[in-house]
Amino acid sequence: MTTPPVRARDLGFLLHDWLSLEGLLAYPHFQDHGRETVDAMLDIAGRVAADTFLPHYKAADQHEPHLVDGQVRILPAIRQALAAYAEIGMFAAPFDAEVGGLQLPHLAYSAAMAQFMAANVATAAYPMLTMGNAELLVRYAGAALVRACALPEIQGRYFGTMCLSEPQAGSSLADIATRAVPDGSDELGPRYRLFGNKMWISGGDQDASENIVHLVLAKVPGPDGKLIPGTQGISLFVVPKVLVDGSAFAGQRNDVVVAGLNHKMGYRGTANCLLNFGEGAHHRPGGEAGAVGYRVGGVGQGLPIMFQMMNSARISVGLGAAMLGYRGYRLAVDYARDRRQGRPLAAQKGATGGPVAIIDHPDVRRLLLAQKAYAEGALALVLYCARLVDEERHGPAEGRTEAGSLLGLLTPVAKTWPAEWGLAANDLAIQVHGGYGYTRDFDVEQLYRDNRLNPIHEGTTGIQGLDLMGRKTLRDDGASLAILRRRVQATVERARRLPALADFAHALEVTWARIGALVGHLKAAGDDAASLAQATSFLSAFGHAVVAWQWLDQAVVAGTLDVAPDAEEAAFRSGKLAACRFFFETEVPRIDVWLGIVGRRSDLTQTIDPAAF
Amino acid sequence: MTTPPVRARDLGFLLHDWLSLEGLLAYPHFQDHGRETVDAMLDIAGRVAADTFLPHYKAADQHEPHLVDGQVRILPAIRQALAAYAEIGMFAAPFDAEVGGLQLPHLAYSAAMAQFMAANVATAAYPMLTMGNAELLVRYAGAALVRACALPEIQGRYFGTMCLSEPQAGSSLADIATRAVPDGSDELGPRYRLFGNKMWISGGDQDASENIVHLVLAKVPGPDGKLIPGTQGISLFVVPKVLVDGSAFAGQRNDVVVAGLNHKMGYRGTANCLLNFGEGAHHRPGGEAGAVGYRVGGVGQGLPIMFQMMNSARISVGLGAAMLGYRGYRLAVDYARDRRQGRPLAAQKGATGGPVAIIDHPDVRRLLLAQKAYAEGALALVLYCARLVDEERHGPAEGRTEAGSLLGLLTPVAKTWPAEWGLAANDLAIQVHGGYGYTRDFDVEQLYRDNRLNPIHEGTTGIQGLDLMGRKTLRDDGASLAILRRRVQATVERARRLPALADFAHALEVTWARIGALVGHLKAAGDDAASLAQATSFLSAFGHAVVAWQWLDQAVVAGTLDVAPDAEEAAFRSGKLAACRFFFETEVPRIDVWLGIVGRRSDLTQTIDPAAF
Repeated sequence: MTTPPVRARDLGFLLHDWLSLEGLLAYPHFQDHGRETVDAMLDIAGRVAADTFLPHYKAADQHEPHLVDGQVRILPAIRQALAAYAEIGMFAAPFDAEVGGLQLPHLAYSAAMAQFMAANVATAAYPMLTMGNAELLVRYAGAALVRACALPEIQGRYFGTMCLSEPQAGSSLADIATRAVPDGSDELGPRYRLFGNKMWISGGDQDASENIVHLVLAKVPGPDGKLIPGTQGISLFVVPKVLVDGSAFAGQRNDVVVAGLNHKMGYRGTANCLLNFGEGAHHRPGGEAGAVGYRVGGVGQGLPIMFQMMNSARISVGLGAAMLGYRGYRLAVDYARDRRQGRPLAAQKGATGGPVAIIDHPDVRRLLLAQKAYAEGALALVLYCARLVDEERHGPAEGRTEAGSLLGLLTPVAKTWPAEWGLAANDLAIQVHGGYGYTRDFDVEQLYRDNRLNPIHEGTTGIQGLDLMGRKTLRDDGASLAILRRRVQATVERARRLPALADFAHALEVTWARIGALVGHLKAAGDDAASLAQATSFLSAFGHAVVAWQWLDQAVVAGTLDVAPDAEEAAFRSGKLAACRFFFETEVPRIDVWLGIVGRRSDLTQTIDPAAF
Repeated sequence: MTTPPVRARDLGFLLHDWLSLEGLLAYPHFQDHGRETVDAMLDIAGRVAADTFLPHYKAADQHEPHLVDGQVRILPAIRQALAAYAEIGMFAAPFDAEVGGLQLPHLAYSAAMAQFMAANVATAAYPMLTMGNAELLVRYAGAALVRACALPEIQGRYFGTMCLSEPQAGSSLADIATRAVPDGSDELGPRYRLFGNKMWISGGDQDASENIVHLVLAKVPGPDGKLIPGTQGISLFVVPKVLVDGSAFAGQRNDVVVAGLNHKMGYRGTANCLLNFGEGAHHRPGGEAGAVGYRVGGVGQGLPIMFQMMNSARISVGLGAAMLGYRGYRLAVDYARDRRQGRPLAAQKGATGGPVAIIDHPDVRRLLLAQKAYAEGALALVLYCARLVDEERHGPAEGRTEAGSLLGLLTPVAKTWPAEWGLAANDLAIQVHGGYGYTRDFDVEQLYRDNRLNPIHEGTTGIQGLDLMGRKTLRDDGASLAILRRRVQATVERARRLPALADFAHALEVTWARIGALVGHLKAAGDDAASLAQATSFLSAFGHAVVAWQWLDQAVVAGTLDVAPDAEEAAFRSGKLAACRFFFETEVPRIDVWLGIVGRRSDLTQTIDPAAF
């Protein structure tokens, strides 16, 4: 029997007991689904992930994508795995029926995706990008483009990319220099020719799908032929690798070439490319140089549209990071149960018994508890956000604004917290394995290498901090923070009625009161630049405070389930309470350190002489 | 002109301004040396490290050691680099003249070694192990063994290893099963035949030296033929790969074979082997199976002797970890000065100027300051310990016990703090590089992979915590902690007279008072097992408090040097003050969190049901 990468009870508890998936399924939009269909989807996702994604985890690390005659070749097992993923309808899962989707809640789809990301995050990156791409097109593109590009993505036949960064402008999109020159129009809409280079393009080329749909940010020159400075000049274009039905150049190879592959520390199964658009050297659709692209949205409106995909990609990055942490945790638990070494602390001198399983050593349990708190906390956070997506889109009208507002506030946290602490969990998983964990015979070293990407791509931790503190806090009217604090307070009220949790409820209440006071203080103080210099510490504090709230909330649920547990379920629930306790004993005290740094607004990083380094 | 991996001023400040190398050179033992000879040694070390160690840093990662006909082959560039290292006398540097050494202070040798470890830690591992091996032999072995094994090591012709771990007994030496059966004696002393397997043997085989001297822990069977349980049964043996002059089997290949190579995440240039002793299948010295070994020290006295080498290896691990952090830091500074991206925080909206160097962003400066604080703090700590080695061995008689006692207390810190925080520095160096830092085109990803070993080998962080809290604190009479606290207090007194440092002096005094009170509290509370369950947090707190003290001490020195600085020196000194300020603003507040965890003595890790994971 196949063992799924994620334990069924771990997902079931979060989905059913904690996040009340049933509540979502009561929305009219999800009327065709019940708990059974969702559980069946999760079950098959776990099996397909174990049978097709997991087996090539190491092979894809050892055999990197490579170029043959200008075409990227990836491990055949990746293609086979993604075919299996398509076959069970995973590409279609969250989409509406009218575009061929299964119309499942985003929460259910995310839980299924958790299985694939735990099994093989680099292979899962292809559908993750493809589905975000299709989602954007369905929402913003015209019917012809949707039919020609998005529907084949939803069927899993075409894959998609997002092309934002350029070699000279990593995170600074204002400085992109790719030009989009008007070139008439055809059935697919206003047509352009694109010229420029795009860097760090995951899935930028591969040989696993029939076609590739690039979503490309570029600037349309003004009347003077110059590019408009800043982000206002950015527009969004659909640039298929092979031109699609409805294009005047349908069937022709577009003028997009792979200029190089990036050789990474991890995530090696995901081909990461430098793409050149409009070189004209190898491919000239209609006989002319220039990559043919179709504009989506108005001229100069590209960035806000792209951010729809970016925000969903950020949460997906958080999910991947959580699952890397989770898989390392489960491997470490298994190892710690098997490996016998050392004697109990209380009996170290003159002990006569044989060595004990290392899970009996308190410090190993500390390493495991931390991993559990980080990995399951990160997974809970991301699934919570997935539920907010469903609430925002399909929930009762009166709750949609609140859900969207809270989702915006939590997005930088859902991206960063799993990335930073999932990686920390992977570090501890190696430590549990000792020297063995440092060898390539065990998966934990690869999980660690893979996860190191997550604090970087789709906006570094520093950039997420600026987003949280700047746009979502200092320049916000406070509504979203107020929503979050009301939800935190509701948990506090429930928890303080449970003796085992009352102290933690108090600590959480105090923590959030401090955060609230600090935000008020920073707003009153003005000089946002001085506050933003501490943005990463603010994000660290805020993230820990959010996860502390959710751990307390999980513990409340685990402590008050009204079904009598068998021994296995009792152990499961006690694990939730233990992880909550660990988080409050060991992690929550860190929050004050970060808040202290933010509140002090030291000018050190602003005033230091760069020559002093 | 060759640029040394470590800036001359960084070493010069620590050696001359901070640690008063001149004071050491006044000891009679070092009378042949002056500041000029030491500076010349450091200068040539920097050049040879840059010219021979650095160039194959990446190549040694890409071309791992491999087996050809039972013999490990390593990259030829490693052999050439180590020949250059031998040629300038580095193998001989710290040894006494009577065994062919240069009789330089351990402090000076360590500073020179810093250059080689910064350049290529995996190549530097060979001499590091060889010299620790020779040092043990010179101290504990008979004259014939010293002549036959140690002298060629000091000449750089033979390399050495330490063979402790076995596959079934990683850190738990009580459980080793290698047997040493008496086999008469010859000119080299009491001779044994060894049978067993040793795991994780760095430099266990290679083709860069004429011979390999293994120091092997094994158990001599008792009269009943059984091995004595526990560590009391352990003896120490010299087992050369090729039997040496004075042996009855001189010139014969010993019965030691490489059973396999470990394929690691990093440190790949260091061949890491599973060795089988006494198989008898390939080599039979004197026609018999069994690896021929010569006992050093008495039967059952192996472990305390081996711990002389182990303790020095632990400090060397700290040095390597510090230098990995240091090199990443310097690379990150260079990158941050070159790379232009983004706009100043204060001008983010509607800015018209071009992008700025990323070193102008406060969050990047935070990442650089943290790296500086970790890497230079770690280097300072290790060099401080190197000076204690000189004081203990060659200083005025009345100070030797104090130096040795303090060195014992600081050894677990000098091993762990650089390993944990040097790795954290490497993590931040990647972050400064963004996506580029995640690719193998830049060295920072390799530095990170290399450094991940250091919290594991020569005793994991968890084991160092048990050593610090158990043997060095709870089971100690308090003398060594009292010595440390007197030195801390002396720094506090000097610092509080400087207005820029007075607040930090106060914070440091309070911190150490808390540690002192906590130790008293734990001793009074009894139940050491309950305290030891928090040993890693104790080590974290203690390590940060030690480094905080040393940063304050460095700042005192930088702030009171009486030579007027030029612009470059002024920037250097302001950097020391800035790093000190960073440490007290950002790092010192963490100490209370760890102390709180220790003081609470939560029973969570002792009472949790293992089934709850």
